[in-house]
Amino acid sequence: MIASSVPAPVATRRPAAFEILKSAPADGSTKARLGRLHTPHGDIETPTFMPVGTNATVKALDPDDLDEVGARIILANTYHLYLRPGHERIARLGGLHRFMGWDRPILTDSGGFQVVSLGDLRVIDDDGVTFRSHLDGSTHRFTPELSIAVQEALGPDIAVAFDQPVPPHASTRAEVATATARTGQWAARSLAAHDRPDQALFGIIQGGLEEDLRAESTRQIAALPFDGLCIGGLAGDETAQQRGQVLDGVVALLADDPRPRYLMGLGSPLDMLDAVHRGVDMFDSVLPARVARNGSLWTPEGRLNLRNAAFLDDPRPVQADCRCRLCRHHSRAYLAHLFRADELLAYRLATCHNLTYCLDFMARIRLAIADGTLPALVRDLTARHVPRQPADRPSSDRQAGAEGG
Amino acid sequence: MIASSVPAPVATRRPAAFEILKSAPADGSTKARLGRLHTPHGDIETPTFMPVGTNATVKALDPDDLDEVGARIILANTYHLYLRPGHERIARLGGLHRFMGWDRPILTDSGGFQVVSLGDLRVIDDDGVTFRSHLDGSTHRFTPELSIAVQEALGPDIAVAFDQPVPPHASTRAEVATATARTGQWAARSLAAHDRPDQALFGIIQGGLEEDLRAESTRQIAALPFDGLCIGGLAGDETAQQRGQVLDGVVALLADDPRPRYLMGLGSPLDMLDAVHRGVDMFDSVLPARVARNGSLWTPEGRLNLRNAAFLDDPRPVQADCRCRLCRHHSRAYLAHLFRADELLAYRLATCHNLTYCLDFMARIRLAIADGTLPALVRDLTARHVPRQPADRPSSDRQAGAEGG
Repeated sequence: MIASSVPAPVATRRPAAFEILKSAPADGSTKARLGRLHTPHGDIETPTFMPVGTNATVKALDPDDLDEVGARIILANTYHLYLRPGHERIARLGGLHRFMGWDRPILTDSGGFQVVSLGDLRVIDDDGVTFRSHLDGSTHRFTPELSIAVQEALGPDIAVAFDQPVPPHASTRAEVATATARTGQWAARSLAAHDRPDQALFGIIQGGLEEDLRAESTRQIAALPFDGLCIGGLAGDETAQQRGQVLDGVVALLADDPRPRYLMGLGSPLDMLDAVHRGVDMFDSVLPARVARNGSLWTPEGRLNLRNAAFLDDPRPVQADCRCRLCRHHSRAYLAHLFRADELLAYRLATCHNLTYCLDFMARIRLAIADGTLPALVRDLTARHVPRQPADRPSSDRQAGAEGG
Repeated sequence: MIASSVPAPVATRRPAAFEILKSAPADGSTKARLGRLHTPHGDIETPTFMPVGTNATVKALDPDDLDEVGARIILANTYHLYLRPGHERIARLGGLHRFMGWDRPILTDSGGFQVVSLGDLRVIDDDGVTFRSHLDGSTHRFTPELSIAVQEALGPDIAVAFDQPVPPHASTRAEVATATARTGQWAARSLAAHDRPDQALFGIIQGGLEEDLRAESTRQIAALPFDGLCIGGLAGDETAQQRGQVLDGVVALLADDPRPRYLMGLGSPLDMLDAVHRGVDMFDSVLPARVARNGSLWTPEGRLNLRNAAFLDDPRPVQADCRCRLCRHHSRAYLAHLFRADELLAYRLATCHNLTYCLDFMARIRLAIADGTLPALVRDLTARHVPRQPADRPSSDRQAGAEGG
């Protein structure tokens, strides 16, 4: 693919053609839409949530577990796989799908978020980012060209352009402006570098919380022939209201754009519901799995902390109507015991539950969009969950880069 | 059940009736026999190996995994479950089968091995053992009566009499004699205390490496109406030759005894093969799972250490003809990566493999007994594995008590 430095007519490219099955209604009651993303490894119904498999595994789960929880696409981290076991090694072993034994779609991020989040371990210039590995301190340099080369070697269905995100509240307007301009240049370079025909490439919109910079970035990235548009720099330390304003601004500019919109890093169910309502189609986050490993289980009635001693005597399943292997086979008492005994099985069962919860929640959202009842669902669930639970706060969604999922 | 202080006519009791499908041949070419143990939760073909689920979970596996690897009976540890989460809690929650979601047979040990192995943390007298918990230092006391009460509360298909094992090489003859005499008295008290009609009770033969004490213990325990006979105090620091001599002595005395013979704590395939050849029907050990979690994978060609960097580029399965989920779906390279990244999935996949290897090895042994080819199998495999590999040495089979599986 040849980079286009002037606004090009936008067309979905074949490797990830997006079909809008139901557009947002003309009455403006919701911006939510129903879609289907076609990829070389299968179709994905949207809105969708992507579990994160940082090191070529969604922590504690194998591919059969992922299939059972309902994952239809997962995200893997370019930064982590570049460092270990190495993208060239994965390419020699047949690519990421074969390496991890997962034959459904995969999206890789660009590594931008991780390398930019390394703090004192990195230096950013207009050409790229020099950083030190969080594993062994060795020095590396990511450019848009290298990020694309790594992703082409890994071989996901969807790659993502290299960008420079900034934490909204920790950045001056000048810093946001510089990073956003760089993201635009790096987007064009990512497109120019990308030529794997069986792989889609998504661009990333930045701009922090600055309305004009977000709008400018949106127009700039949308003018390029990406297959999908990521909205970056959110799911961090912004408030829900700030995030909503940014999303509304971006989605308004993309109203007639036929491509999928992917809000990076968001994973709490109510936050995703709000974002879907505002027009977002795709999500990813380590949150459901990370809190599960800490003993926090999500249910329609709220969050259960399985490390609480009260659960040691509770014979009920974590969630009575849940189809996951934890709820089908085991009691809260058993899971609470496994956590106390630090048994490995605790992490797998809890992760299966929270991911099932998230993915079933997205299925319910899709059904509500199809039925035309999404606004009612938003009203109903928002009313039931005020004030919001700690687990539903976005601030814990995404932690500083290199940690991974 | 009423305790018998005089040798009683031995009869298999209903909760674990043992059917000998093929007796050891009259020509003496092998003492191996084929059997079927009937329990309330199903039948078990013998010789059999029992994976160890110390804390009501075989580490890293769930019940579906256990079923898939081919486990037909597992062992759980009375000492650990008494301390955490507590036997009374498990009883309130419906018993151990329901608690851990496993509806096939379970055998519990008596806790004797664990509490006696606590070293400075315990004091033994003729009535029982006072010990301090390895979890919180709290003081507890096990007697034969309490061990049986705990096992009745847990509700396994097979309980085991409380005993005092001794490490052969670290004990004087006088110590072995005292412990063996105590084990005999505790056996009678265990029988007297036991009255759960749906639960079998096995007795334990001790006697260290002292030929006469072993013989005396064998006659004494065999005279009591237990449903099966455990051979304790081995799989420790004895040599293979010493173990073989003890087994030959015990089995000779039990030649006409219709009950299953269970050698406690042995788990390396070649050691089990040798013991089957000498007349043993049942085994348990943490060894296959423990070494798996350390990256040591068993194959017919030998042991693979997946932490070795060479495997990072090896696209082959760990064992080409293996039916386990690791070998079906993943390469050595992927498993080596998971171990290096300390990913939880590594422990599950490696454990699935080693347990499948062990259980398939036992199935092969049963087939050879049925075919009359066991002596040839012993000759063939022993010749191929001289000198023995480190992983096949018994010394690492059983570590000091409280650690558990």
